[in-house]
Amino acid sequence: MNFDESTLTDAVLARMDKCQDARFKLVMTSLIRHLHDFIREVEPTEAEWFAGVRFLTETGQKCDDVRQEFILMSDTLGVSMLVDAINHRFPGGATPTTVFGPFFVEGAPNMPHWGNIAEGLPGTPCFVQGTVRDTTGEPIAGAVIDIWQTDGVEGLYDVQRPNTHYGRGKITTDAEGRYAFRTVQPISYPVPDDGPVGDMLRRMGRHPVRPAHIHTMLNAPGYQTLTTHLFVKDDPYLESDAVFGVKEALIAEFVPQQPGMAPDGKHCDRPFSTVHYDFVMAGA
Amino acid sequence: MNFDESTLTDAVLARMDKCQDARFKLVMTSLIRHLHDFIREVEPTEAEWFAGVRFLTETGQKCDDVRQEFILMSDTLGVSMLVDAINHRFPGGATPTTVFGPFFVEGAPNMPHWGNIAEGLPGTPCFVQGTVRDTTGEPIAGAVIDIWQTDGVEGLYDVQRPNTHYGRGKITTDAEGRYAFRTVQPISYPVPDDGPVGDMLRRMGRHPVRPAHIHTMLNAPGYQTLTTHLFVKDDPYLESDAVFGVKEALIAEFVPQQPGMAPDGKHCDRPFSTVHYDFVMAGA
Repeated sequence: MNFDESTLTDAVLARMDKCQDARFKLVMTSLIRHLHDFIREVEPTEAEWFAGVRFLTETGQKCDDVRQEFILMSDTLGVSMLVDAINHRFPGGATPTTVFGPFFVEGAPNMPHWGNIAEGLPGTPCFVQGTVRDTTGEPIAGAVIDIWQTDGVEGLYDVQRPNTHYGRGKITTDAEGRYAFRTVQPISYPVPDDGPVGDMLRRMGRHPVRPAHIHTMLNAPGYQTLTTHLFVKDDPYLESDAVFGVKEALIAEFVPQQPGMAPDGKHCDRPFSTVHYDFVMAGA
Repeated sequence: MNFDESTLTDAVLARMDKCQDARFKLVMTSLIRHLHDFIREVEPTEAEWFAGVRFLTETGQKCDDVRQEFILMSDTLGVSMLVDAINHRFPGGATPTTVFGPFFVEGAPNMPHWGNIAEGLPGTPCFVQGTVRDTTGEPIAGAVIDIWQTDGVEGLYDVQRPNTHYGRGKITTDAEGRYAFRTVQPISYPVPDDGPVGDMLRRMGRHPVRPAHIHTMLNAPGYQTLTTHLFVKDDPYLESDAVFGVKEALIAEFVPQQPGMAPDGKHCDRPFSTVHYDFVMAGA
Protein backbone atom coordinates (compact mmCIF):
# COMPACT_ATOMS: atom_id res chain seq x y z
CA MET A 1 0.00 0.00 0.00
CA ASN A 2 0.94 3.71 0.03
CA PHE A 3 2.14 3.53 -3.60
CA ASP A 4 3.23 6.84 -5.05
CA GLU A 5 4.23 8.08 -8.51
CA SER A 6 7.61 6.37 -8.30
CA THR A 7 6.75 3.09 -6.53
CA LEU A 8 3.46 2.22 -8.24
CA THR A 9 4.94 0.67 -11.39
CA ASP A 10 6.99 -1.91 -9.50
CA ALA A 11 3.96 -2.69 -7.33
CA VAL A 12 1.83 -3.44 -10.41
CA LEU A 13 4.59 -5.62 -11.91
CA ALA A 14 5.10 -7.50 -8.62
CA ARG A 15 1.40 -8.41 -8.68
CA MET A 16 2.22 -10.82 -11.57
CA ASP A 17 4.31 -13.08 -9.34
CA LYS A 18 1.81 -15.92 -9.79
CA CYS A 19 1.55 -15.52 -13.59
CA GLN A 20 2.14 -18.95 -15.19
CA ASP A 21 2.57 -17.73 -18.77
CA ALA A 22 6.14 -16.46 -19.26
CA ARG A 23 5.43 -14.84 -22.65
CA PHE A 24 2.27 -13.09 -21.41
CA LYS A 25 4.19 -11.86 -18.35
CA LEU A 26 6.96 -10.44 -20.56
CA VAL A 27 4.45 -8.65 -22.83
CA MET A 28 2.46 -7.23 -19.89
CA THR A 29 5.65 -6.12 -18.11
CA SER A 30 6.76 -4.13 -21.15
CA LEU A 31 3.23 -2.75 -21.67
CA ILE A 32 2.85 -1.63 -18.04
CA ARG A 33 6.30 0.01 -17.95
CA HIS A 34 5.66 1.96 -21.17
CA LEU A 35 2.09 2.89 -20.21
CA HIS A 36 3.25 4.25 -16.84
CA ASP A 37 6.24 6.05 -18.40
CA PHE A 38 3.86 7.63 -20.93
CA ILE A 39 1.59 8.85 -18.11
CA ARG A 40 4.54 10.21 -16.09
CA GLU A 41 5.86 11.96 -19.20
CA VAL A 42 2.67 13.73 -20.28
CA GLU A 43 1.10 14.14 -16.80
CA PRO A 44 -2.50 14.03 -18.11
CA THR A 45 -5.18 16.01 -16.33
CA GLU A 46 -8.12 13.91 -15.17
CA ALA A 47 -10.15 15.35 -18.08
CA GLU A 48 -7.44 14.26 -20.55
CA TRP A 49 -7.32 10.80 -19.00
CA PHE A 50 -11.06 10.51 -19.41
CA ALA A 51 -10.85 11.77 -23.02
CA GLY A 52 -8.44 8.85 -23.61
CA VAL A 53 -10.87 6.39 -22.03
CA ARG A 54 -13.67 7.76 -24.18
CA PHE A 55 -11.55 7.61 -27.36
CA LEU A 56 -10.67 3.93 -26.77
CA THR A 57 -14.30 3.12 -25.93
CA GLU A 58 -15.62 4.78 -29.08
CA THR A 59 -12.95 3.07 -31.16
CA GLY A 60 -14.07 -0.33 -29.86
CA GLN A 61 -17.71 0.49 -30.38
CA LYS A 62 -17.10 1.59 -34.00
CA CYS A 63 -15.97 -1.97 -34.87
CA ASP A 64 -18.38 -4.38 -36.57
CA ASP A 65 -18.29 -7.15 -39.17
CA VAL A 66 -16.89 -4.90 -41.90
CA ARG A 67 -15.11 -2.20 -39.89
CA GLN A 68 -12.06 -2.67 -37.64
CA GLU A 69 -11.27 0.71 -36.11
CA PHE A 70 -8.43 -0.59 -33.89
CA ILE A 71 -6.62 -2.00 -36.94
CA LEU A 72 -7.12 1.42 -38.53
CA MET A 73 -5.55 3.01 -35.45
CA SER A 74 -2.66 0.55 -35.58
CA ASP A 75 -2.21 1.24 -39.32
CA THR A 76 -2.29 5.04 -39.06
CA LEU A 77 0.07 5.16 -36.05
CA GLY A 78 2.63 3.04 -37.92
CA VAL A 79 2.24 0.08 -35.57
CA SER A 80 1.06 -2.32 -38.28
CA MET A 81 4.05 -1.57 -40.52
CA LEU A 82 6.37 -2.03 -37.53
CA VAL A 83 4.85 -5.44 -36.75
CA ASP A 84 5.09 -6.28 -40.45
CA ALA A 85 8.78 -5.33 -40.57
CA ILE A 86 9.58 -7.38 -37.46
CA ASN A 87 7.79 -10.46 -38.78
CA HIS A 88 9.18 -10.36 -42.32
CA ARG A 89 12.92 -9.89 -42.16
CA PHE A 90 13.34 -11.35 -45.65
CA PRO A 91 16.73 -11.97 -47.25
CA GLY A 92 18.01 -9.42 -49.76
CA GLY A 93 16.46 -9.79 -53.18
CA ALA A 94 13.02 -10.89 -51.95
CA THR A 95 10.06 -8.60 -52.65
CA PRO A 96 9.37 -6.58 -49.48
CA THR A 97 6.09 -6.91 -47.61
CA THR A 98 3.64 -4.21 -46.63
CA VAL A 99 0.46 -3.88 -44.57
CA PHE A 100 -2.24 -6.52 -44.84
CA GLY A 101 -5.04 -4.00 -44.31
CA PRO A 102 -8.64 -4.70 -43.29
CA PHE A 103 -10.14 -5.62 -46.68
CA PHE A 104 -8.91 -9.17 -47.34
CA VAL A 105 -11.63 -11.82 -47.66
CA GLU A 106 -10.99 -15.59 -47.72
CA GLY A 107 -12.25 -17.63 -50.63
CA ALA A 108 -11.86 -15.27 -53.60
CA PRO A 109 -12.78 -16.97 -56.91
CA ASN A 110 -10.06 -18.83 -58.85
CA MET A 111 -9.36 -17.13 -62.18
CA PRO A 112 -7.67 -18.41 -65.33
CA HIS A 113 -4.60 -16.80 -66.94
CA TRP A 114 -5.77 -13.30 -68.03
CA GLY A 115 -8.96 -13.70 -65.99
CA ASN A 116 -10.74 -10.42 -65.20
CA ILE A 117 -10.89 -9.88 -61.43
CA ALA A 118 -12.79 -6.59 -61.84
CA GLU A 119 -15.61 -7.58 -64.20
CA GLY A 120 -18.21 -4.84 -64.19
CA LEU A 121 -16.21 -2.47 -61.98
CA PRO A 122 -15.81 1.15 -63.15
CA GLY A 123 -12.34 2.34 -64.11
CA THR A 124 -9.62 2.21 -66.74
CA PRO A 125 -8.95 -1.37 -67.92
CA CYS A 126 -5.56 -2.58 -66.71
CA PHE A 127 -3.54 -5.65 -67.72
CA VAL A 128 -1.00 -6.94 -65.18
CA GLN A 129 1.57 -9.65 -65.83
CA GLY A 130 4.92 -10.89 -64.62
CA THR A 131 6.66 -13.80 -62.93
CA VAL A 132 7.06 -15.26 -59.48
CA ARG A 133 10.62 -16.46 -58.75
CA ASP A 134 12.73 -17.49 -55.77
CA THR A 135 15.77 -15.52 -54.62
CA THR A 136 18.02 -17.55 -56.96
CA GLY A 137 15.91 -16.56 -59.98
CA GLU A 138 14.19 -19.96 -60.42
CA PRO A 139 10.52 -19.63 -61.43
CA ILE A 140 7.92 -20.85 -58.91
CA ALA A 141 5.14 -22.83 -60.58
CA GLY A 142 1.76 -23.16 -58.86
CA ALA A 143 2.15 -20.09 -56.65
CA VAL A 144 -1.32 -18.77 -55.75
CA ILE A 145 -1.73 -14.98 -55.84
CA ASP A 146 -4.68 -13.52 -53.97
CA ILE A 147 -5.51 -10.12 -55.48
CA TRP A 148 -7.83 -7.49 -54.04
CA GLN A 149 -8.26 -3.77 -54.76
CA THR A 150 -10.62 -0.82 -55.11
CA ASP A 151 -12.45 0.10 -58.27
CA GLY A 152 -11.00 2.85 -60.45
CA VAL A 153 -13.61 5.60 -59.98
CA GLU A 154 -14.99 5.60 -56.44
CA GLY A 155 -12.02 3.95 -54.71
CA LEU A 156 -14.14 1.38 -52.84
CA TYR A 157 -13.42 -2.27 -52.01
CA ASP A 158 -16.14 -4.82 -52.69
CA VAL A 159 -16.89 -5.18 -48.96
CA GLN A 160 -17.67 -1.44 -48.88
CA ARG A 161 -20.39 -1.85 -51.54
CA PRO A 162 -23.52 -3.92 -51.08
CA ASN A 163 -24.04 -6.90 -53.40
CA THR A 164 -20.79 -6.94 -55.37
CA HIS A 165 -18.04 -9.53 -55.35
CA TYR A 166 -15.65 -7.98 -57.82
CA GLY A 167 -12.20 -6.50 -57.43
CA ARG A 168 -10.97 -9.78 -55.94
CA GLY A 169 -9.63 -13.08 -57.31
CA LYS A 170 -6.98 -15.79 -57.23
CA ILE A 171 -4.46 -16.43 -60.00
CA THR A 172 -2.07 -19.42 -60.12
CA THR A 173 1.35 -19.21 -61.79
CA ASP A 174 2.04 -21.52 -64.75
CA ALA A 175 5.00 -23.89 -65.20
CA GLU A 176 7.29 -20.96 -66.03
CA GLY A 177 6.16 -19.01 -62.92
CA ARG A 178 4.10 -16.62 -65.03
CA TYR A 179 0.90 -14.89 -63.93
CA ALA A 180 -1.45 -12.52 -65.74
CA PHE A 181 -4.78 -10.89 -64.95
CA ARG A 182 -7.05 -8.14 -66.11
CA THR A 183 -8.43 -5.55 -63.69
CA VAL A 184 -9.13 -1.79 -63.52
CA GLN A 185 -6.44 0.69 -62.53
CA PRO A 186 -6.92 1.46 -58.81
CA ILE A 187 -7.08 5.01 -57.48
CA SER A 188 -5.97 6.62 -54.23
CA TYR A 189 -8.68 6.66 -51.55
CA PRO A 190 -9.22 7.77 -47.95
CA VAL A 191 -9.24 5.15 -45.19
CA PRO A 192 -12.62 5.26 -43.40
CA ASP A 193 -12.45 8.59 -41.56
CA ASP A 194 -15.94 9.01 -40.12
CA GLY A 195 -14.92 7.47 -36.78
CA PRO A 196 -12.61 8.22 -33.83
CA VAL A 197 -9.46 7.47 -35.89
CA GLY A 198 -10.56 9.97 -38.55
CA ASP A 199 -10.97 12.57 -35.79
CA MET A 200 -7.50 11.69 -34.49
CA LEU A 201 -5.95 12.14 -37.94
CA ARG A 202 -7.61 15.54 -38.44
CA ARG A 203 -6.42 16.68 -35.05
CA MET A 204 -2.88 15.52 -35.91
CA GLY A 205 -3.07 17.66 -39.07
CA ARG A 206 -2.98 14.59 -41.32
CA HIS A 207 -4.94 13.47 -44.38
CA PRO A 208 -6.43 9.93 -44.47
CA VAL A 209 -5.46 9.06 -48.05
CA ARG A 210 -3.64 5.96 -49.28
CA PRO A 211 -1.89 6.05 -52.68
CA ALA A 212 -3.45 3.79 -55.35
CA HIS A 213 -2.42 0.13 -55.01
CA ILE A 214 -3.32 -3.45 -55.80
CA HIS A 215 -3.12 -5.84 -52.82
CA THR A 216 -1.40 -9.18 -53.43
CA MET A 217 -0.80 -12.15 -51.16
CA LEU A 218 1.36 -14.93 -52.60
CA ASN A 219 1.42 -18.47 -51.23
CA ALA A 220 3.58 -21.34 -52.49
CA PRO A 221 4.71 -24.52 -50.68
CA GLY A 222 8.22 -24.08 -49.29
CA TYR A 223 8.08 -20.26 -49.34
CA GLN A 224 7.11 -17.60 -46.84
CA THR A 225 3.76 -15.98 -47.50
CA LEU A 226 4.34 -12.65 -49.27
CA THR A 227 1.71 -10.03 -48.43
CA THR A 228 2.35 -6.85 -50.32
CA HIS A 229 1.00 -4.16 -52.69
CA LEU A 230 1.74 -2.91 -56.19
CA PHE A 231 1.68 0.89 -55.95
CA VAL A 232 0.91 3.06 -58.96
CA LYS A 233 3.95 5.12 -59.97
CA ASP A 234 3.49 8.92 -59.82
CA ASP A 235 0.53 8.75 -57.44
CA PRO A 236 0.60 12.09 -55.53
CA TYR A 237 0.18 10.30 -52.18
CA LEU A 238 3.18 7.94 -52.45
CA GLU A 239 5.20 10.16 -50.07
CA SER A 240 2.42 10.53 -47.50
CA ASP A 241 0.59 7.18 -47.37
CA ALA A 242 -1.74 7.38 -44.34
CA VAL A 243 -0.50 3.96 -43.17
CA PHE A 244 3.25 4.33 -44.04
CA GLY A 245 3.19 1.30 -46.33
CA VAL A 246 5.04 2.48 -49.46
CA LYS A 247 8.37 0.91 -50.44
CA GLU A 248 10.20 1.90 -53.60
CA ALA A 249 10.53 -1.71 -54.75
CA LEU A 250 6.74 -2.00 -54.77
CA ILE A 251 6.08 0.90 -57.13
CA ALA A 252 5.10 -0.29 -60.60
CA GLU A 253 4.66 1.66 -63.80
CA PHE A 254 1.09 1.59 -65.08
CA VAL A 255 1.79 2.42 -68.74
CA PRO A 256 -1.07 4.20 -70.58
CA GLN A 257 -2.07 2.60 -73.89
CA GLN A 258 -4.36 3.63 -76.74
CA PRO A 259 -7.38 1.48 -77.66
CA GLY A 260 -6.32 -1.59 -79.64
CA MET A 261 -4.93 -5.06 -79.07
CA ALA A 262 -4.45 -5.71 -75.34
CA PRO A 263 -1.87 -8.05 -73.75
CA ASP A 264 -4.57 -10.73 -73.31
CA GLY A 265 -4.80 -11.00 -77.10
CA LYS A 266 -8.20 -9.35 -77.32
CA HIS A 267 -9.19 -5.96 -78.68
CA CYS A 268 -9.84 -3.27 -76.05
CA ASP A 269 -12.00 -0.42 -77.40
CA ARG A 270 -10.99 2.04 -74.67
CA PRO A 271 -7.67 3.42 -73.44
CA PHE A 272 -6.09 0.96 -71.00
CA SER A 273 -2.89 0.52 -69.01
CA THR A 274 -0.30 -2.25 -68.80
CA VAL A 275 1.88 -3.32 -65.88
CA HIS A 276 4.80 -5.71 -65.64
CA TYR A 277 5.86 -6.77 -62.14
CA ASP A 278 8.04 -9.67 -61.03
CA PHE A 279 7.69 -11.04 -57.52
CA VAL A 280 10.51 -12.74 -55.59
CA MET A 281 9.53 -15.02 -52.70
CA ALA A 282 11.77 -15.88 -49.72
CA GLY A 283 12.25 -19.52 -48.78
CA ALA A 284 10.42 -20.77 -45.68
CA MET B 1 8.78 5.79 -48.04
CA ASN B 2 10.95 2.70 -47.45
CA PHE B 3 10.52 3.01 -43.67
CA ASP B 4 12.09 0.21 -41.67
CA GLU B 5 12.07 -0.85 -38.02
CA SER B 6 14.42 1.96 -37.04
CA THR B 7 13.16 4.86 -39.23
CA LEU B 8 9.41 4.33 -38.98
CA THR B 9 8.91 6.07 -35.63
CA ASP B 10 10.42 9.36 -36.76
CA ALA B 11 8.39 9.16 -39.99
CA VAL B 12 5.13 8.85 -38.00
CA LEU B 13 6.13 11.75 -35.75
CA ALA B 14 7.12 13.94 -38.73
CA ARG B 15 3.62 13.45 -40.15
CA MET B 16 2.35 15.76 -37.35
CA ASP B 17 4.16 18.79 -38.76
CA LYS B 18 0.81 20.47 -39.52
CA CYS B 19 -0.69 19.73 -36.10
CA GLN B 20 -2.05 22.99 -34.65
CA ASP B 21 -2.62 21.73 -31.10
CA ALA B 22 0.68 21.80 -29.19
CA ARG B 23 -0.62 19.79 -26.22
CA PHE B 24 -2.19 17.11 -28.45
CA LYS B 25 1.05 16.90 -30.43
CA LEU B 26 3.07 16.42 -27.24
CA VAL B 27 0.73 13.69 -25.98
CA MET B 28 0.68 11.86 -29.34
CA THR B 29 4.46 12.12 -29.68
CA SER B 30 4.98 10.44 -26.32
CA LEU B 31 2.28 7.85 -27.08
CA ILE B 32 3.74 6.94 -30.48
CA ARG B 33 7.29 6.67 -29.11
CA HIS B 34 6.25 4.39 -26.25
CA LEU B 35 3.92 2.31 -28.43
CA HIS B 36 6.68 1.71 -30.99
CA ASP B 37 9.27 1.00 -28.27
CA PHE B 38 6.86 -1.53 -26.73
CA ILE B 39 6.46 -3.26 -30.12
CA ARG B 40 10.22 -3.31 -30.74
CA GLU B 41 10.80 -4.69 -27.25
CA VAL B 42 8.31 -7.57 -27.35
CA GLU B 43 8.45 -8.26 -31.13
CA PRO B 44 4.87 -9.56 -31.31
CA THR B 45 3.97 -12.24 -33.82
CA GLU B 46 1.15 -11.25 -36.17
CA ALA B 47 -1.15 -13.55 -34.16
CA GLU B 48 -0.19 -11.75 -30.93
CA TRP B 49 -0.75 -8.37 -32.57
CA PHE B 50 -4.21 -9.48 -33.63
CA ALA B 51 -4.92 -10.84 -30.14
CA GLY B 52 -4.17 -7.32 -28.89
CA VAL B 53 -6.53 -5.78 -31.45
CA ARG B 54 -9.24 -8.25 -30.43
CA PHE B 55 -8.70 -7.57 -26.71
CA LEU B 56 -9.07 -3.80 -27.19
CA THR B 57 -12.12 -4.28 -29.41
CA GLU B 58 -13.85 -6.56 -26.89
CA THR B 59 -12.99 -4.14 -24.08
CA GLY B 60 -14.69 -1.30 -25.96
CA GLN B 61 -17.69 -3.42 -26.82
CA LYS B 62 -18.15 -4.50 -23.18
CA CYS B 63 -18.81 -0.85 -22.21
CA ASP B 64 -22.38 0.39 -21.73
CA ASP B 65 -24.32 2.83 -19.52
CA VAL B 66 -23.35 1.04 -16.30
CA ARG B 67 -20.08 -0.69 -17.26
CA GLN B 68 -16.80 1.03 -18.21
CA GLU B 69 -14.32 -1.72 -19.06
CA PHE B 70 -11.53 0.69 -20.13
CA ILE B 71 -11.67 2.44 -16.73
CA LEU B 72 -11.47 -1.04 -15.19
CA MET B 73 -8.38 -1.74 -17.32
CA SER B 74 -6.87 1.61 -16.27
CA ASP B 75 -7.66 0.86 -12.61
CA THR B 76 -6.26 -2.68 -12.58
CA LEU B 77 -3.06 -1.72 -14.44
CA GLY B 78 -2.34 1.03 -11.90
CA VAL B 79 -2.86 3.81 -14.45
CA SER B 80 -5.77 5.41 -12.59
CA MET B 81 -3.80 5.66 -9.33
CA LEU B 82 -0.86 7.15 -11.22
CA VAL B 83 -3.09 9.81 -12.81
CA ASP B 84 -4.61 10.41 -9.36
CA ALA B 85 -1.17 10.86 -7.78
CA ILE B 86 -0.04 13.27 -10.50
CA ASN B 87 -3.17 15.38 -10.21
CA HIS B 88 -3.31 15.56 -6.40
CA ARG B 89 0.09 16.49 -5.09
CA PHE B 90 -1.44 17.80 -1.87
CA PRO B 91 0.60 19.48 0.85
CA GLY B 92 1.64 17.40 3.86
CA GLY B 93 -1.14 17.00 6.39
CA ALA B 94 -3.98 16.82 3.84
CA THR B 95 -5.93 13.57 3.55
CA PRO B 96 -4.57 11.63 0.55
CA THR B 97 -6.74 10.88 -2.46
CA THR B 98 -7.46 7.54 -4.07
CA VAL B 99 -9.26 6.21 -7.16
CA PHE B 100 -12.62 7.66 -8.17
CA GLY B 101 -13.90 4.34 -9.51
CA PRO B 102 -16.80 3.75 -11.90
CA PHE B 103 -19.72 3.81 -9.42
CA PHE B 104 -20.22 7.51 -8.67
CA VAL B 105 -23.61 8.97 -9.64
CA GLU B 106 -24.42 12.69 -9.67
CA GLY B 107 -27.36 13.96 -7.61
CA ALA B 108 -27.32 11.69 -4.57
CA PRO B 109 -29.98 12.70 -2.00
CA ASN B 110 -29.10 15.28 0.67
CA MET B 111 -29.16 13.73 4.14
CA PRO B 112 -29.41 15.33 7.58
CA HIS B 113 -26.83 14.84 10.37
CA TRP B 114 -27.01 11.10 11.21
CA GLY B 115 -29.08 10.43 8.10
CA ASN B 116 -29.09 6.79 6.96
CA ILE B 117 -27.55 6.49 3.49
CA ALA B 118 -28.13 2.71 3.41
CA GLU B 119 -31.79 2.45 4.42
CA GLY B 120 -32.99 -1.07 3.65
CA LEU B 121 -29.57 -2.39 2.58
CA PRO B 122 -28.39 -5.67 4.12
CA GLY B 123 -25.35 -5.56 6.44
CA THR B 124 -24.14 -4.63 9.91
CA PRO B 125 -25.31 -1.12 10.91
CA CYS B 126 -22.42 1.31 11.00
CA PHE B 127 -22.21 4.83 12.45
CA VAL B 128 -19.54 7.13 10.98
CA GLN B 129 -18.60 10.55 12.33
CA GLY B 130 -15.75 13.01 12.39
CA THR B 131 -14.67 16.46 11.26
CA VAL B 132 -13.54 18.22 8.13
CA ARG B 133 -10.68 20.67 8.68
CA ASP B 134 -8.11 22.59 6.67
CA THR B 135 -4.36 21.96 6.95
CA THR B 136 -4.09 24.52 9.78
CA GLY B 137 -6.70 22.63 11.84
CA GLU B 138 -9.56 25.10 11.28
CA PRO B 139 -12.95 23.39 10.86
CA ILE B 140 -14.61 23.75 7.44
CA ALA B 141 -18.34 24.47 7.73
CA GLY B 142 -20.66 23.65 4.83
CA ALA B 143 -18.36 21.08 3.21
CA VAL B 144 -20.47 18.66 1.19
CA ILE B 145 -19.50 14.97 1.43
CA ASP B 146 -20.75 12.66 -1.29
CA ILE B 147 -20.80 9.10 0.08
CA TRP B 148 -21.25 5.87 -1.92
CA GLN B 149 -20.54 2.25 -1.11
CA THR B 150 -21.60 -1.39 -1.44
CA ASP B 151 -24.04 -3.12 0.83
CA GLY B 152 -22.64 -5.29 3.63
CA VAL B 153 -23.69 -8.77 2.43
CA GLU B 154 -23.49 -9.03 -1.36
CA GLY B 155 -20.90 -6.31 -1.96
CA LEU B 156 -22.92 -4.56 -4.70
CA TYR B 157 -23.33 -0.86 -5.50
CA ASP B 158 -26.83 0.47 -6.12
CA VAL B 159 -26.15 0.78 -9.87
CA GLN B 160 -25.44 -2.97 -9.92
CA ARG B 161 -28.91 -3.77 -8.55
CA PRO B 162 -32.12 -2.93 -10.36
CA ASN B 163 -34.50 -0.50 -8.68
CA THR B 164 -32.54 0.59 -5.63
CA HIS B 165 -31.15 4.00 -4.80
CA TYR B 166 -29.50 3.23 -1.49
CA GLY B 167 -25.89 3.14 -0.38
CA ARG B 168 -25.47 6.75 -1.56
CA GLY B 169 -26.07 10.21 -0.08
CA LYS B 170 -24.76 13.70 0.63
CA ILE B 171 -23.93 15.04 4.09
CA THR B 172 -23.04 18.67 4.88
CA THR B 173 -20.70 19.63 7.73
CA ASP B 174 -22.09 21.83 10.50
CA ALA B 175 -20.63 25.09 11.84
CA GLU B 176 -17.93 23.14 13.72
CA GLY B 177 -16.99 21.13 10.61
CA ARG B 178 -18.68 17.98 11.96
CA TYR B 179 -20.35 15.30 9.88
CA ALA B 180 -22.18 12.12 10.84
CA PHE B 181 -24.11 9.44 8.98
CA ARG B 182 -25.49 5.96 9.39
CA THR B 183 -24.76 3.21 6.87
CA VAL B 184 -23.93 -0.51 6.77
CA GLN B 185 -20.37 -1.77 7.10
CA PRO B 186 -19.05 -2.41 3.55
CA ILE B 187 -17.39 -5.69 2.57
CA SER B 188 -14.61 -6.55 0.14
CA TYR B 189 -15.86 -7.38 -3.37
CA PRO B 190 -14.55 -8.35 -6.81
CA VAL B 191 -14.47 -5.75 -9.57
CA PRO B 192 -16.61 -6.95 -12.52
CA ASP B 193 -14.55 -9.84 -13.86
CA ASP B 194 -16.80 -11.41 -16.51
CA GLY B 195 -15.22 -9.37 -19.33
CA PRO B 196 -11.85 -8.99 -21.09
CA VAL B 197 -10.24 -7.31 -18.06
CA GLY B 198 -11.29 -10.23 -15.83
CA ASP B 199 -9.65 -12.60 -18.33
CA MET B 200 -6.51 -10.42 -18.27
CA LEU B 201 -6.35 -10.53 -14.46
CA ARG B 202 -6.73 -14.33 -14.37
CA ARG B 203 -3.99 -14.71 -16.96
CA MET B 204 -1.75 -12.39 -14.91
CA GLY B 205 -2.35 -14.69 -11.90
CA ARG B 206 -4.24 -11.95 -10.03
CA HIS B 207 -7.49 -11.84 -8.02
CA PRO B 208 -10.07 -9.11 -8.78
CA VAL B 209 -10.94 -8.19 -5.16
CA ARG B 210 -10.98 -4.74 -3.61
CA PRO B 211 -10.78 -4.42 0.20
CA ALA B 212 -13.94 -3.08 1.89
CA HIS B 213 -14.28 0.71 1.69
CA ILE B 214 -16.64 3.68 1.76
CA HIS B 215 -16.18 6.17 -1.11
CA THR B 216 -16.17 9.86 -0.17
CA MET B 217 -15.87 12.99 -2.27
CA LEU B 218 -15.60 16.27 -0.36
CA ASN B 219 -16.28 19.67 -1.90
CA ALA B 220 -15.99 23.04 -0.17
CA PRO B 221 -15.49 26.52 -1.68
CA GLY B 222 -11.80 27.50 -1.58
CA TYR B 223 -10.58 23.90 -1.25
CA GLN B 224 -9.46 21.24 -3.69
CA THR B 225 -11.98 18.45 -4.21
CA LEU B 226 -10.97 15.47 -2.09
CA THR B 227 -11.93 12.12 -3.64
CA THR B 228 -10.96 9.28 -1.39
CA HIS B 229 -12.03 6.11 0.50
CA LEU B 230 -12.28 4.98 4.08
CA PHE B 231 -10.88 1.45 4.16
CA VAL B 232 -11.90 -1.07 6.82
CA LYS B 233 -8.94 -1.94 9.08
CA ASP B 234 -7.90 -5.62 9.08
CA ASP B 235 -9.56 -6.38 5.73
CA PRO B 236 -7.57 -9.32 4.28
CA TYR B 237 -7.27 -7.59 0.89
CA LEU B 238 -5.68 -4.32 2.09
CA GLU B 239 -2.25 -5.47 0.84
CA SER B 240 -3.50 -6.67 -2.56
CA ASP B 241 -6.21 -4.21 -3.64
CA ALA B 242 -6.97 -5.04 -7.31
CA VAL B 243 -6.70 -1.32 -8.17
CA PHE B 244 -3.71 -0.37 -5.93
CA GLY B 245 -5.76 2.28 -4.08
CA VAL B 246 -4.94 1.64 -0.40
CA LYS B 247 -3.06 4.25 1.64
CA GLU B 248 -2.37 3.76 5.32
CA ALA B 249 -3.83 7.18 6.22
CA LEU B 250 -7.18 6.04 4.77
CA ILE B 251 -7.59 2.95 6.94
CA ALA B 252 -10.20 3.48 9.65
CA GLU B 253 -11.08 1.28 12.58
CA PHE B 254 -14.64 -0.03 12.38
CA VAL B 255 -15.15 -0.78 16.12
CA PRO B 256 -17.64 -3.61 16.83
CA GLN B 257 -20.36 -2.72 19.37
CA GLN B 258 -23.03 -4.71 21.22
CA PRO B 259 -26.74 -3.86 20.69
CA GLY B 260 -27.73 -0.76 22.67
CA MET B 261 -27.55 3.02 22.43
CA ALA B 262 -25.94 4.05 19.10
CA PRO B 263 -24.00 7.29 18.40
CA ASP B 264 -27.10 8.79 16.73
CA GLY B 265 -28.83 8.73 20.12
CA LYS B 266 -31.21 5.94 19.17
CA HIS B 267 -31.37 2.33 20.33
CA CYS B 268 -29.93 -0.24 17.88
CA ASP B 269 -31.23 -3.75 18.53
CA ARG B 270 -28.43 -5.50 16.63
CA PRO B 271 -24.64 -5.48 16.90
CA PHE B 272 -23.23 -2.46 15.05
CA SER B 273 -19.91 -0.76 14.39
CA THR B 274 -18.66 2.79 14.95
CA VAL B 275 -16.05 4.77 13.02
CA HIS B 276 -14.33 8.07 13.72
CA TYR B 277 -12.49 9.69 10.83
CA ASP B 278 -11.26 13.27 10.41
CA PHE B 279 -10.72 14.65 6.90
CA VAL B 280 -8.19 17.39 6.08
CA MET B 281 -8.73 19.35 2.85
CA ALA B 282 -6.00 21.15 0.88
CA GLY B 283 -6.53 24.80 -0.11
CA ALA B 284 -7.34 25.48 -3.76
